[in-house]
Amino acid sequence: MAVVNHAGSAPRFLRVLNGESFASPPVWFMRQAGRYLPEYRATRAKAGSFLELCYHPELAAEVTLQPIERYDLDAAILFADILLIPQALGQALTFGEGEGPKLAPPVTAADLDRFARADIHATLGPVYETVRRTRAGLAADKALIGFAGAPWTVATYMLAGGALREPAELRRILYSDPGFMGDLIALICDATVDYLIRQIDAGADAVQLFDTWAGGLPEAALRTLSIEPMRDIAARVKAQRPGTPVILFPKGVGAMAPAYAELAEADGLGIDFAMPWDWARAHLSKHVAVQGGLDPMLVVTGGREMEEAARRLKKTFAGVPYIFNLGHGFTPDTPPDHVKRLVEIVREEH
Amino acid sequence: MAVVNHAGSAPRFLRVLNGESFASPPVWFMRQAGRYLPEYRATRAKAGSFLELCYHPELAAEVTLQPIERYDLDAAILFADILLIPQALGQALTFGEGEGPKLAPPVTAADLDRFARADIHATLGPVYETVRRTRAGLAADKALIGFAGAPWTVATYMLAGGALREPAELRRILYSDPGFMGDLIALICDATVDYLIRQIDAGADAVQLFDTWAGGLPEAALRTLSIEPMRDIAARVKAQRPGTPVILFPKGVGAMAPAYAELAEADGLGIDFAMPWDWARAHLSKHVAVQGGLDPMLVVTGGREMEEAARRLKKTFAGVPYIFNLGHGFTPDTPPDHVKRLVEIVREEH
Repeated sequence: MAVVNHAGSAPRFLRVLNGESFASPPVWFMRQAGRYLPEYRATRAKAGSFLELCYHPELAAEVTLQPIERYDLDAAILFADILLIPQALGQALTFGEGEGPKLAPPVTAADLDRFARADIHATLGPVYETVRRTRAGLAADKALIGFAGAPWTVATYMLAGGALREPAELRRILYSDPGFMGDLIALICDATVDYLIRQIDAGADAVQLFDTWAGGLPEAALRTLSIEPMRDIAARVKAQRPGTPVILFPKGVGAMAPAYAELAEADGLGIDFAMPWDWARAHLSKHVAVQGGLDPMLVVTGGREMEEAARRLKKTFAGVPYIFNLGHGFTPDTPPDHVKRLVEIVREEH
Repeated sequence: MAVVNHAGSAPRFLRVLNGESFASPPVWFMRQAGRYLPEYRATRAKAGSFLELCYHPELAAEVTLQPIERYDLDAAILFADILLIPQALGQALTFGEGEGPKLAPPVTAADLDRFARADIHATLGPVYETVRRTRAGLAADKALIGFAGAPWTVATYMLAGGALREPAELRRILYSDPGFMGDLIALICDATVDYLIRQIDAGADAVQLFDTWAGGLPEAALRTLSIEPMRDIAARVKAQRPGTPVILFPKGVGAMAPAYAELAEADGLGIDFAMPWDWARAHLSKHVAVQGGLDPMLVVTGGREMEEAARRLKKTFAGVPYIFNLGHGFTPDTPPDHVKRLVEIVREEH
């Protein structure tokens, strides 16, 4: 758990990461700033492309704050992308409309020395400015979350040149060239620590690491490629900026989730929508503040099924530190009115 | 566990499903009959297409037996495909070279009555003949495994018209039209029971249900769409053909695996390569014979890493009923010599 560094008036989001619990838990949503919101689409149209929006501090701060203004959520999360780090290291990043991201060319061992010398802050400076502007526009009782991709997930994109289609191919690299895989992960760890420290210095109150592709790794590989790199980043961030809470979100890790929760460096642990809630409460909540779990598709369909699931989720984690969230990000077809109703249910004091 | 129905000379594979354990566990491999074997490619060339091979009893029995002859494995598994059932129900099935399977058109509620009246055995007769020929060609100490896709996995293909690209789309159908989803699952359950009974009557010694797409379902949906339908099929098969062991393989279910192991109807439970082994031994082995777990990519790369993992896997399950296998099927680039070495390690008596 994090060192106590806020008075009782601190954002409830941070108080939960510090071990408190609330009948009405703090709430934010993954991809809460996004295409499902008309005000986001309007700002995005002003910026041009998705990447131009990521690097436009004024407009990026604007979209970061939009869901807070609309729903009075407890935390804003920096508007950026996990692939800005590979771009800052030296890969060419593009987002085609309707396609996934591309990183060209796929990284090889020959790139690592050059990437290690890259001045990532020269590229990422606008992101830090977005953090400053967002924090300045946010009330004192709201938290601002900085974030980065976890090294394994970032590595999958760097190696595949885009979204991972064949996970087995990367395990082949791991088994046949563990040295290269280790060097790549270490390079991403170093860059990620520097990136998160700058976000914290610019005003981020907590940071989250997203390991979207952790699921499906055999245990030994998961320990080497996901758990240990996330632990390393959290330890270094906390050593340099004591008291900053760190949330880990290893998606799809199932029965391995306790290995993350037990890390001394983890203050919060995100759970995906396939994680059983009672099991998570029994095996994770004694170690860490749990965050998330609701199937985002329930918010697309809405109605009684969404409402009952949301109440059951709150009840499962009653009495232990818990942050309400989804088990994966909102999809673009999420009706904003369903989100409004969901927040009302989270705000009920029972 | 299954009713005792074999003397001490019964296949070791069946003895493990009946609660025995061996220092050198019985072994078979998912996709052991397949493109990685030159003799398979030769037989397949004689048959024509993959589907023609599935429906050609003489050649299908030949490829089913090939890995037993080459590696002296403990069990053969019927050569067929999980999508033969939707084809028998009335969808058009095609396998384009280098593409995934296609089922046209995607199933809708309007199809269900017609599908329920289909005479599936008229289509599936050659499969039963393959079972008969294979059993006749197999030594008495070897087991023959029949199989089918689990209803949820089969339903994903039927609904998507092929391999699932957007799992969230099917959860949308579940939440917005649970009646249709339930009817479709029930239809597949009925057909699957009939199909497996015929396989058993033709000579299958045990049956396995593959739920390849179970991973990623929220707990409530997993119980409705995966656990309960698999339990229902196993119960009906065992009621009609007492003593037939049933193995469940729900891929990617992580912390939910004990809910399958605890089913009275489950004799064996397959574990995927992401399942932590010590955890599986601790939480599954008290209920069921565990099967599988090795990353098939380790057999592609081979060498010391494969050998050490195989010995560690055997050691993890020493003293409890365990069947050696992979956590997913062989890929076509698996060197047959690596498989040979793997079997030698499994056969070591320590």
